[in-house]
Amino acid sequence: MSVLEQATRAKLAATAIATASRSAKDAALCAMADGLHTRAGEVLAANAKDLAAGKEAGMSEALLDRLALSPARIDSIAAGLRKIAGLPDPVGEVIRGSTLPNGLQLRQIRVPLGVVGIIYEARPNVTADAAGLCIKAGNTVLLRGSSTAARSNAAIVAILRDGITVAGLPADCVQLVDASSRESVTELMRARGLVDVLVPRGGASLIRSVVENSIVPVIETGVGNCHVYVDETADLDAAMAIVLNAKVQRPSVCNAAESLLVHRAIAEEFLPRMLPALRDNGVTVHGNPAVVAAGAAAGIRIEPATAEDYETEYLSLDLAAAVVDSIDEAIAHIRRYGSGHTEAIVTESVTAANRFVAEVDAAAVMVNASTRFTDGEEFGFGAEIGISTQKLHARGPMGLPELTATKYVVTGSGHVR
Amino acid sequence: MSVLEQATRAKLAATAIATASRSAKDAALCAMADGLHTRAGEVLAANAKDLAAGKEAGMSEALLDRLALSPARIDSIAAGLRKIAGLPDPVGEVIRGSTLPNGLQLRQIRVPLGVVGIIYEARPNVTADAAGLCIKAGNTVLLRGSSTAARSNAAIVAILRDGITVAGLPADCVQLVDASSRESVTELMRARGLVDVLVPRGGASLIRSVVENSIVPVIETGVGNCHVYVDETADLDAAMAIVLNAKVQRPSVCNAAESLLVHRAIAEEFLPRMLPALRDNGVTVHGNPAVVAAGAAAGIRIEPATAEDYETEYLSLDLAAAVVDSIDEAIAHIRRYGSGHTEAIVTESVTAANRFVAEVDAAAVMVNASTRFTDGEEFGFGAEIGISTQKLHARGPMGLPELTATKYVVTGSGHVR
Repeated sequence: MSVLEQATRAKLAATAIATASRSAKDAALCAMADGLHTRAGEVLAANAKDLAAGKEAGMSEALLDRLALSPARIDSIAAGLRKIAGLPDPVGEVIRGSTLPNGLQLRQIRVPLGVVGIIYEARPNVTADAAGLCIKAGNTVLLRGSSTAARSNAAIVAILRDGITVAGLPADCVQLVDASSRESVTELMRARGLVDVLVPRGGASLIRSVVENSIVPVIETGVGNCHVYVDETADLDAAMAIVLNAKVQRPSVCNAAESLLVHRAIAEEFLPRMLPALRDNGVTVHGNPAVVAAGAAAGIRIEPATAEDYETEYLSLDLAAAVVDSIDEAIAHIRRYGSGHTEAIVTESVTAANRFVAEVDAAAVMVNASTRFTDGEEFGFGAEIGISTQKLHARGPMGLPELTATKYVVTGSGHVR
Repeated sequence: MSVLEQATRAKLAATAIATASRSAKDAALCAMADGLHTRAGEVLAANAKDLAAGKEAGMSEALLDRLALSPARIDSIAAGLRKIAGLPDPVGEVIRGSTLPNGLQLRQIRVPLGVVGIIYEARPNVTADAAGLCIKAGNTVLLRGSSTAARSNAAIVAILRDGITVAGLPADCVQLVDASSRESVTELMRARGLVDVLVPRGGASLIRSVVENSIVPVIETGVGNCHVYVDETADLDAAMAIVLNAKVQRPSVCNAAESLLVHRAIAEEFLPRMLPALRDNGVTVHGNPAVVAAGAAAGIRIEPATAEDYETEYLSLDLAAAVVDSIDEAIAHIRRYGSGHTEAIVTESVTAANRFVAEVDAAAVMVNASTRFTDGEEFGFGAEIGISTQKLHARGPMGLPELTATKYVVTGSGHVR
């Protein structure tokens, strides 16, 4: 079936899921979870074929690990669906309401977006997570996963569709789009009027390509070039802990720190403590001349940093670092190189914290906390479909409300102007 | 100066206006209004030149009227700026806030979008309105008006920039973009990273072109193919009044009705009253066979309607009409032809009203009220920058909050994961 046909089916199914009761949607989510439990064998068999093909094609160990499913991983995917069932239904929430001077009753309510397209890479758990969130928010979803996970995704989607049918909703609420060619991505990007929003999740080049070529509205997610700025008044113990946590705890994710900025006034005290701790945690530092000098004094080799280092989302145990003369220089550096994801300041100065919060333009600004907290789970949203780095519609972790639009409902008794 | 240079200046000025106090922004708005009063002569002189050039180029009377300024119109533009000064400041509003289980303090606050680009047609009052709303919401603005209003817009923008300077804010918060070629529109659409959002206001073809070609995020405004559906249980007096108001009161605007749908069960009673009233108000009806027959019986000529009629936003005293067999057929018709702006039902049935509200996918749904109420002023928002017909970010009348983004501010005391 062509993507256009699939999108047409998705639009047809959209009314049924948009007007479905919470209990029907939750029943579908639980049936989807049950199906994953009872039919885990099908998913594992399909996944084994994907893994074998991946090995043969020379996929890296890291990518193979992201692709691999196990009974425990499938349990956790199913548990995720049950958790989504437990979240409040965003549809129908009244956001704004009043009686106008002429007696008209105005309500602004949350409604589903309609048809959501998600373009994502290797990990097959995204298939169920994204489908679950879309269903709960009353949307139908077109899933365009990676070709390397095609068999795993097909097995998962077959089970999800059966679960939806059990709850009396149309199976076409969840559809897997052909992943064998780039063509299907192009078709999704042209399906204006059928697809209401596209969410690309993956590497910077995928996201850039979708943003530049799609005539369907896009929500950008994920590229994080996050900074930690250690101010002259910082508590240095807190700064050490935050920098290490932000860089080392999980370097491969978008809310990990990629750059460290240190105020010159405390650099001489801070760097001789920070640089060895980073080295002991396996971090390679790429620094400006002041950082290189501090490293040399401590007997630690620092790579000289280029502009490219400051621009890079390493997603590895690398860290760009610079000593700056002032908070102004720190803010200017972040303005130049930041990706608008998460920026952190470590400071004891209320004035510095306020300036940083006001002047840094990012989805999330942390004061004395690790960049790693920018996450739907950590923020208490229950689940997330990604972290938006754009300004329109959704910014930061996107939960269920971000998968809805709004509608004004105006009730009168024959009112005319 | 190139558009890219102007956008760079706008981005540089953005921090100053983003962090400006409400009193500074309101002072700028009042100084802008004062300037328009005291220097109205400059604006009128420039406008006279635009009008003369327009006449020479053979512009229609309607367009010349939209272009024409008078002392009274300038007063009203200035009053609009003062009114915006009186509205609450959206910037800094806390939308969501909580203390997380680990003690982190989470706040989601409204922040300015940054640099807003507005592409609009003839009317020079939009220049001041749009600039005023952007300034109040802490944004800088690039105004790309019509070449036919270039002199008027330049005179207005010169005064607005002086007003901004009086309040100690950078003049580059408001800049007029060259309107002499399409090139400047293209440059705005490519200025990703400098311009945060583009708002096209004008005809369907302008909006379509911007949506399809811009890599800067776009908020679509304005195309309204609005329907009034008269249900079988409608109060026919209310239905008559609503249809006439929706079609006739101001046919040239996007919230005017373009189509009438009548349930077959009341068509025989309703159309013999409705069709003469429409004729008496100068409306040409384009109907399906049942409407044509009802017209013939009443001695009123009805044009046979084509699919094109149902698709057209007439913006004139024309009305497409159809008798439908059921509310399902009405909803299906609206789903096929509607533009997602405003749809109205006239009914005494709670069940029918609920179905219509739930199943019609539009920015605003009216129950027993005229489509003409979809308007920022009527909704009590104080002022509007347009009516969004898209689902993401803003849907329906866009006031000051819709000119903002949000930012998460997370405050800890050395928190790490």
